[in-house]
Amino acid sequence: MKFEVNASLGYKVTAPTTFIFNTSVLRNRHQQVIEESFIVDPAIQYQELQRSNEGNRFIRMQVMVPMDVFISYRAIVNTSWTVIPQQYQTAENVAYLEPSILKYLNPSRYCQSDKLARLANNKFNNIENPYLKVIELTGWINRNVEYLSGSTNSETSAYDTVTQQAGVCRDFAHLGIALCRALTIPARYFTGYAFQLYPADFHACFEAYLGGKWILFDATGLAPLNGLVKIGSSRDAADVPVASIFGNAENSFMTVECKCLETGFSPYFYQTGNLEGISYL
Amino acid sequence: MKFEVNASLGYKVTAPTTFIFNTSVLRNRHQQVIEESFIVDPAIQYQELQRSNEGNRFIRMQVMVPMDVFISYRAIVNTSWTVIPQQYQTAENVAYLEPSILKYLNPSRYCQSDKLARLANNKFNNIENPYLKVIELTGWINRNVEYLSGSTNSETSAYDTVTQQAGVCRDFAHLGIALCRALTIPARYFTGYAFQLYPADFHACFEAYLGGKWILFDATGLAPLNGLVKIGSSRDAADVPVASIFGNAENSFMTVECKCLETGFSPYFYQTGNLEGISYL
Amino acid sequence: MKFEVNASLGYKVTAPTTFIFNTSVLRNRHQQVIEESFIVDPAIQYQELQRSNEGNRFIRMQVMVPMDVFISYRAIVNTSWTVIPQQYQTAENVAYLEPSILKYLNPSRYCQSDKLARLANNKFNNIENPYLKVIELTGWINRNVEYLSGSTNSETSAYDTVTQQAGVCRDFAHLGIALCRALTIPARYFTGYAFQLYPADFHACFEAYLGGKWILFDATGLAPLNGLVKIGSSRDAADVPVASIFGNAENSFMTVECKCLETGFSPYFYQTGNLEGISYL
Amino acid sequence: MKFEVNASLGYKVTAPTTFIFNTSVLRNRHQQVIEESFIVDPAIQYQELQRSNEGNRFIRMQVMVPMDVFISYRAIVNTSWTVIPQQYQTAENVAYLEPSILKYLNPSRYCQSDKLARLANNKFNNIENPYLKVIELTGWINRNVEYLSGSTNSETSAYDTVTQQAGVCRDFAHLGIALCRALTIPARYFTGYAFQLYPADFHACFEAYLGGKWILFDATGLAPLNGLVKIGSSRDAADVPVASIFGNAENSFMTVECKCLETGFSPYFYQTGNLEGISYL
Repeated sequence: MKFEVNASLGYKVTAPTTFIFNTSVLRNRHQQVIEESFIVDPAIQYQELQRSNEGNRFIRMQVMVPMDVFISYRAIVNTSWTVIPQQYQTAENVAYLEPSILKYLNPSRYCQSDKLARLANNKFNNIENPYLKVIELTGWINRNVEYLSGSTNSETSAYDTVTQQAGVCRDFAHLGIALCRALTIPARYFTGYAFQLYPADFHACFEAYLGGKWILFDATGLAPLNGLVKIGSSRDAADVPVASIFGNAENSFMTVECKCLETGFSPYFYQTGNLEGISYL
Repeated sequence: MKFEVNASLGYKVTAPTTFIFNTSVLRNRHQQVIEESFIVDPAIQYQELQRSNEGNRFIRMQVMVPMDVFISYRAIVNTSWTVIPQQYQTAENVAYLEPSILKYLNPSRYCQSDKLARLANNKFNNIENPYLKVIELTGWINRNVEYLSGSTNSETSAYDTVTQQAGVCRDFAHLGIALCRALTIPARYFTGYAFQLYPADFHACFEAYLGGKWILFDATGLAPLNGLVKIGSSRDAADVPVASIFGNAENSFMTVECKCLETGFSPYFYQTGNLEGISYL
Repeated sequence: MKFEVNASLGYKVTAPTTFIFNTSVLRNRHQQVIEESFIVDPAIQYQELQRSNEGNRFIRMQVMVPMDVFISYRAIVNTSWTVIPQQYQTAENVAYLEPSILKYLNPSRYCQSDKLARLANNKFNNIENPYLKVIELTGWINRNVEYLSGSTNSETSAYDTVTQQAGVCRDFAHLGIALCRALTIPARYFTGYAFQLYPADFHACFEAYLGGKWILFDATGLAPLNGLVKIGSSRDAADVPVASIFGNAENSFMTVECKCLETGFSPYFYQTGNLEGISYL
Repeated sequence: MKFEVNASLGYKVTAPTTFIFNTSVLRNRHQQVIEESFIVDPAIQYQELQRSNEGNRFIRMQVMVPMDVFISYRAIVNTSWTVIPQQYQTAENVAYLEPSILKYLNPSRYCQSDKLARLANNKFNNIENPYLKVIELTGWINRNVEYLSGSTNSETSAYDTVTQQAGVCRDFAHLGIALCRALTIPARYFTGYAFQLYPADFHACFEAYLGGKWILFDATGLAPLNGLVKIGSSRDAADVPVASIFGNAENSFMTVECKCLETGFSPYFYQTGNLEGISYL
């Protein structure tokens, strides 16, 4: 499916500042980037950083003097995804898991799976099938956590959300990840652009590793699973902020867009009874 | 310097369990492993996992039936380290930092640098020299946190330690890391064997990235800096537990030893006024 | 019902220390104290403090020099309690609540009802009947929190327990209180001696204010509700520690006993379908 | 000194709601209320609640149907306070403390003195004189915590503030109280109107019990100590919110004023070297 994505950000820089932006989409066999531009106004040199293990692409830029600076990222991307029938979504045995996946079992800043271990096991460990286990915990989050803009901040973690029961997409994702890891299911944070997400914004959901594939789950249920354009995956939001700011700069505005350039987009959500998951690489 | 290290661990396994052990020492140009053995009793197949980015070596072992199992790791290692004079311990500019180092600026499970940002900056940001900054924060931890066995547990994080002011080596390390990152100094967890540490145990300290080198700091001051044999580095303790246990097993005993096989070991600690740091790779 | 209660405590005092003990049973129309003694060995003067609003009785004692000190409290008490049929367990309207009760709606050290507000309302607010609401939340705690000695400490609060799902009687009580307050039901901590509690210990449960009565609830389900001898009520455990120690003293032992001096004790627990609550004053 | 205080509050009530307001000033020998009015628009019956132990006066009001409601409190008050020379600010011995004061040594919702015990003792216990101890901790808060509107919320506690180092007057007060209690100095929350506080608002500070008097301390240093008109004291902010809302209502505006009706007001602050404290009853 062909999408056009845009992100425009403005900053008031008041001291020498290095920015690391995380707005560029992944390039892989599921996401062909047809066109792409990154514009800085005023024109300032920037650098695309080599990919992390997960392939995330970062842009780094140094602003030496106080000024207002605007960046605008735009890409046209052709995305595809794999449907994984339920019989292939088998449990991963830690004894055979690739070493590169193991770290996604560890607790991280926003996903304290160690502290949620008893709760996760009490609630979900009786479910045999690993895919259904994740579906169930995703549904539990969806039913128990209220999507409430402004109810959380950059310090909010899964440990908070499980009790406070309110948050935004990143909080839903962190809780899903923490619960998966507590159940010995590798899980990671997924950030991207989302078609038909209202109001338009960056979106966050999560991937669980089942049957050798990273299967996508979105506890918010707010965006069609087939309308995502992936920016990156990571342990949690700590590793993929939209903008890391080293220095002194204040965000003055942000607009995000994701348009479908084809007709016939048919929103896809997981349905009760349909045991297929989807996987972006 | 030549050291012999030993770690013996016993487990009562009550259900099928996969262990991932993190007792093997690093092999690199600063640590030549002269002899090494990993013995499991009863004999159970195990697998050495390929190194992580940081070179850490893990051993994975699957115990299929309930039993008592004992593992014993032993190595003879020749270690060396680099002395870094103060003039080379320059501040890292985020604008030029290698991408692989950037993640060591992010908050992690036990090192919530985001939550300590104001405190770190209030206390230490007036110190110009980056090495002195880390020396100063290390000293501050040493003066303010009491080493108290049993005062903390596996859930304790830097955010707790800054107020509770008691902990063990891992807590001292986590707080050091969190403060460094809050000051935009990349920092990582260092775990190893330690000569002249009493009582003998695995040791934890931390490395700060200055002038392109990982300089070693130990806020506990309990072990000579030149008596360490490195097991690994990582974001924090979440990534390098002595043993990760997936299944059901209880630790029945643990002994750790680190002997110097040469004479003439002269304990080295950072001294006030001496502006040299040391770096294990 | 006639009970004999005993509490013996030993302390190693290493510096001048003031103790405030909270072992004496309440004296009121539901608890007649037939015999009572408080023995200190060696003999040291102590003082019974005037009752708090809730009638709690404290004993204060100053130990001026280092020594081993033993205290032994013993009482024979005749207890009674009121059965409150369900039709009298009506919801309290804050608009008419006596002012002295209002504080039991406020969050306290261990019962952060403000932080549990959304969870409590999501889970239990659809239940009309206030008594059933408390019965339901008590059952929810019982099903979801595991009684696990040593899993918590004196810093553990309801906010922790709701996620950690393990604790001892005081943690069960704190969570019950926090949930009630979050639902605008006044609730307070109840501490006492408990017949047929194994292993014998001080017990904690909680009281909810319904229909003008403090109705007793015990989320642990570990002790018959009619076998309690009340020591006191308070906002939470912060106000009724067994011993407050100002100085330097270490507890060397503690034994607690509660014997029934009559035959024919018939253990009483709330039963599904039986809508009667009981109230100690 | 004669002051006029005003507080006007507006609420959008969307469901039957009971309000408990905490805007009325204390009446005692240090505060003579010369004139006082509490106006509700539209006119709704309200009730003044009997005083708590601390003498706080609450107004309770039930709004039965959705509406916009406005309340306006106004009083003219003659205040006085006692100067306590340093020699009378003696340490309290817990062994002789009146029982009614003991509760102010216990941790509370926002003042977790138990968790700050080691820090408080490490930092301040070497100071002999109890008054200087409190002066010192007040200064420490003032130097280390930044007054930053909007940086905290109603869940923020002393445990957070000690690390986050930012907050508003209530956070400064909570930290002061927690540190005092950790040092075995009874301490309580003080809320009132404050002359020459900019921007005008309700103010919070704290009282420490020394030499049998509640001595006033204000870690913010933002308002003259002799320009306060006391609303009440309590364990912490949990017991004296400006408005407790049971039902569904949203605050639409709030204005607070405190004017001096006499000339010659001379702002009084504690000065280094001046060892006098002041006490409102």
